[in-house]
Amino acid sequence: MAAKSWVLTDHSANEYVTDLTLTDKDAPAATGCTVTKRTLRGGLSDGVDVVRVDNGACRFDVLPTRGMGIWRAWVGDLEIGWRSPVRGPVHPAHVPVGESTGLGWLDGFDELLVRCGLESNGAPEFDEEGRVAYPLHGRIANKPAHRVSVSIDDDTGEIAVRGSVEETRFHFLKVRLDSVVRTKPGEPGFRIEDTVVNISGSPAEIQMLYHCNFGLPLLGAGAQVVAPVKTVVPRNDHAASGVKAWPTYSGEAAGYEEQVYFLELLADDNGRTQAMLKDAHGMKAATMYFNKRQLPCFSVWKNTTSAPDGYVTGLEPGTNFPNPRTYEGEQGRVAKLDGAGSISFDFALKIHRNQAEVEAGEKEIAALQGDVKPKVFDSPQEGWCAPG
Amino acid sequence: MAAKSWVLTDHSANEYVTDLTLTDKDAPAATGCTVTKRTLRGGLSDGVDVVRVDNGACRFDVLPTRGMGIWRAWVGDLEIGWRSPVRGPVHPAHVPVGESTGLGWLDGFDELLVRCGLESNGAPEFDEEGRVAYPLHGRIANKPAHRVSVSIDDDTGEIAVRGSVEETRFHFLKVRLDSVVRTKPGEPGFRIEDTVVNISGSPAEIQMLYHCNFGLPLLGAGAQVVAPVKTVVPRNDHAASGVKAWPTYSGEAAGYEEQVYFLELLADDNGRTQAMLKDAHGMKAATMYFNKRQLPCFSVWKNTTSAPDGYVTGLEPGTNFPNPRTYEGEQGRVAKLDGAGSISFDFALKIHRNQAEVEAGEKEIAALQGDVKPKVFDSPQEGWCAPG
Amino acid sequence: MAAKSWVLTDHSANEYVTDLTLTDKDAPAATGCTVTKRTLRGGLSDGVDVVRVDNGACRFDVLPTRGMGIWRAWVGDLEIGWRSPVRGPVHPAHVPVGESTGLGWLDGFDELLVRCGLESNGAPEFDEEGRVAYPLHGRIANKPAHRVSVSIDDDTGEIAVRGSVEETRFHFLKVRLDSVVRTKPGEPGFRIEDTVVNISGSPAEIQMLYHCNFGLPLLGAGAQVVAPVKTVVPRNDHAASGVKAWPTYSGEAAGYEEQVYFLELLADDNGRTQAMLKDAHGMKAATMYFNKRQLPCFSVWKNTTSAPDGYVTGLEPGTNFPNPRTYEGEQGRVAKLDGAGSISFDFALKIHRNQAEVEAGEKEIAALQGDVKPKVFDSPQEGWCAPG
Repeated sequence: MAAKSWVLTDHSANEYVTDLTLTDKDAPAATGCTVTKRTLRGGLSDGVDVVRVDNGACRFDVLPTRGMGIWRAWVGDLEIGWRSPVRGPVHPAHVPVGESTGLGWLDGFDELLVRCGLESNGAPEFDEEGRVAYPLHGRIANKPAHRVSVSIDDDTGEIAVRGSVEETRFHFLKVRLDSVVRTKPGEPGFRIEDTVVNISGSPAEIQMLYHCNFGLPLLGAGAQVVAPVKTVVPRNDHAASGVKAWPTYSGEAAGYEEQVYFLELLADDNGRTQAMLKDAHGMKAATMYFNKRQLPCFSVWKNTTSAPDGYVTGLEPGTNFPNPRTYEGEQGRVAKLDGAGSISFDFALKIHRNQAEVEAGEKEIAALQGDVKPKVFDSPQEGWCAPG
Repeated sequence: MAAKSWVLTDHSANEYVTDLTLTDKDAPAATGCTVTKRTLRGGLSDGVDVVRVDNGACRFDVLPTRGMGIWRAWVGDLEIGWRSPVRGPVHPAHVPVGESTGLGWLDGFDELLVRCGLESNGAPEFDEEGRVAYPLHGRIANKPAHRVSVSIDDDTGEIAVRGSVEETRFHFLKVRLDSVVRTKPGEPGFRIEDTVVNISGSPAEIQMLYHCNFGLPLLGAGAQVVAPVKTVVPRNDHAASGVKAWPTYSGEAAGYEEQVYFLELLADDNGRTQAMLKDAHGMKAATMYFNKRQLPCFSVWKNTTSAPDGYVTGLEPGTNFPNPRTYEGEQGRVAKLDGAGSISFDFALKIHRNQAEVEAGEKEIAALQGDVKPKVFDSPQEGWCAPG
Repeated sequence: MAAKSWVLTDHSANEYVTDLTLTDKDAPAATGCTVTKRTLRGGLSDGVDVVRVDNGACRFDVLPTRGMGIWRAWVGDLEIGWRSPVRGPVHPAHVPVGESTGLGWLDGFDELLVRCGLESNGAPEFDEEGRVAYPLHGRIANKPAHRVSVSIDDDTGEIAVRGSVEETRFHFLKVRLDSVVRTKPGEPGFRIEDTVVNISGSPAEIQMLYHCNFGLPLLGAGAQVVAPVKTVVPRNDHAASGVKAWPTYSGEAAGYEEQVYFLELLADDNGRTQAMLKDAHGMKAATMYFNKRQLPCFSVWKNTTSAPDGYVTGLEPGTNFPNPRTYEGEQGRVAKLDGAGSISFDFALKIHRNQAEVEAGEKEIAALQGDVKPKVFDSPQEGWCAPG
């Protein structure tokens, strides 16, 4: 499969393309497709590079400046993503990840898909002196890619946006994320192939969590999570109080306190599984595809507060649950890499545009569920939920 | 009143104007006026947008990149502002507001007018773990505006620079400052109308303090504060030691330790009040106009150190005194906003260019003072001054 | 000596040159020389200004955006510097120096020559509340120059790159580094003249350490430090365990734990001294020249870990050893400046390109050593090594 390819950023060669537009004139197989690269100016976004891919059916924005996150996606008129009170995409210079509170990451949080990791993700953790050992959700989302390119397959017209991002600190973790985001003409979504490479000559541990966030209009009163569930555990007592309704969503409620559920999903013999967010009427939905062998943990974060505060849910396949790093390490929920070793993660998002497509997606999930009855705990469980 | 208007930055529409010059050819009513927008390059200022307004009598620099602060002003040859040891205006990327000391804000401090807030202002405050709960003077001055525009009234030639700046952190405070800076052809100063909007669906509390800073040549040995004073309280014992001379200034003294006085001013029936900094000879002065109902607290910060260290005084109308946030909250000195609620602040600065103008300004203040005798405490007072 | 000169950045005059190339057409005396200025784009380097000087024999990159550090140098095919796991040069916006760990400086560490200071250098130090009092290696390397220029001497063709960088915090230290980097056509290296000026009207203390870093291919198994040694003290027990081999280097060893030695060197009557890093075969070397009266302390940092982790040694003349600031202050190892006072530092790097040049350099060192026998301690010494 031959492909044409365009370098957008190559730090080593000091190449950098400020603006680029590719159409099917540049790559005839990509019928009806457009790829544009631009740099945002002004506000908190000043200096953020955006690669917009439009495959005719679906368009989405890749953010090389924010660790190859996906800002938003659109399928026809339907916007997928959410409206954060943070007006992003935010340049990392405005995100104080290392702030002493450990919460600076929140200043940049507005993407449809933000990777949490790679040294750690989850709640911030402090050392004995009270200093941040692991800031909330880690550093990778606020690291800019040093190499970015686009290629388009000559035959299939498949568009691939590649980016490499490093999270390295001298004397500490040194890892590289090599990400490829793929989509074909007319595909109602995209697919991601990520590889995390341990640059170091010594072993390392990493965590990865795909924090995939949905808001209005897909989310709404009566929307629900559809997934092949083996186990559900509420993260804390507050989540436990709502566990009976864990898969369904309420409408906007100012002051709503977030509820989080930790899940083990069922999968096929190859580890493949999927989870769907379905709107109240079953007329549209989004399905995430991933592999339980790579991403064994699945978290559902419900934050159905008022719209201006960020009415949103996060569906989050990960190597771990978003507990503090030390606790997760104790449970063995980290990925261990040899020196120069690597690990890969596959993730895809597909949008269901009508009732038939939604039902087809539900059927796939029902097949994975089979006749297994989900085990839903009504209280936090040891080994799942960090104390306190 | 029809007006012409030019968008400089509109984050939502991805509009951004790198350079612009407007003259009375663009807006005939603004006789002799010029508005320019440029972006600074190099040093700590790299990437800072500046809107310079010159109305023929007065010119001043508005800083969209620094929360719509006013960098400096000039009336004829007279520079209003001060010479900070910080070589600004400083891009927020170089200001570590969240640094664990809580003092990173100082790295960007060089403006004539810097807003302190909006979650808090005043001395840094730490939580029980020793982590910064409220950094010195808050975050708003280091947030870039996402929307900036200039308009010029067709009839009066009044120039308005508008900017909107957000201070939002997911799960925490979410507020927006909508600022308008106005001036007319020939006006020896400018007027500000600020509105702080609570974006959230839930109630919020904010603080606002206009940290207005004057140095040489207006400040100097023998310069003084002229204001309609009800009460003066020294912030601490050190300030108490100089309270008899609170309204007058010494010349430069290397190693001078700052002294701060907390004041309640008198106002007219509508809350309007004003305070003046007058030079030693009564030949020039600057008056700040504001409303005591909006900004009930007035602080005088004396920092008459050597010129290269920053010989400066701050006259600071605020919702509160610049004590730690928790203490001020206990005294009720915060502004409470409903969900989606807002509060407005009016502030103006006028330069008096000669003895007659100075005397006219003093007469206004004398009228507000009437025959009320100021109450000057010779020690810190409970309810005014945070202990320790 | 007349010279032509070009301003690259002048913050005060709002001058900034984006791209510039100078050749001997611009300055005939600089035969075969080229000076280029460009701004890097993309990745962590986005916005970093680089001045590359090529004198025909040696080329090197000066980094105005990173406190006038020297990124790398090349003499013919030989690269001088090292390959850090950090992909730099890193823009200061991505270096959280004030992070609560005190270790954020490591995120930007990849230069051949990085100045550590000026308030402090060395290991991070925390106050009683656990907050960073002195972050690792200080702030100067992450401050951008506000004034940068190049001049070329009409007679000698000597190229001088000048830059001024400030490390100022209102109410705290206010100092300026005025740096000149010089080289002549055909010179196998460069010379630096630094002056640190106390901007303040009050006395101040500073520290300066030239963290000069060498990796492959100059460093390698069997490479060694050649220096006129009076005393060697291992920093801690781990360093003590390897003290017998202190001047020689091992090959790459994944997981190697760094070893540091503190040295007093011998010098001539004017304080001039020098230290060499020689490759295993004595075929090439790098010599640093400096003055013991200005820089009395010399540290050798051995970090012969695996190449991708940063196989490197630092040879570090300084006003002090890189112990925590308070400890060094107690030993008197700080430079004291009067108000408006200054101190100068001279530093040069010369590359030896063949055996004859290496031997000539060794001869100079042998002359300084004379018949003084080095005193090598086999354990950490009081007054040299901070406890703990």
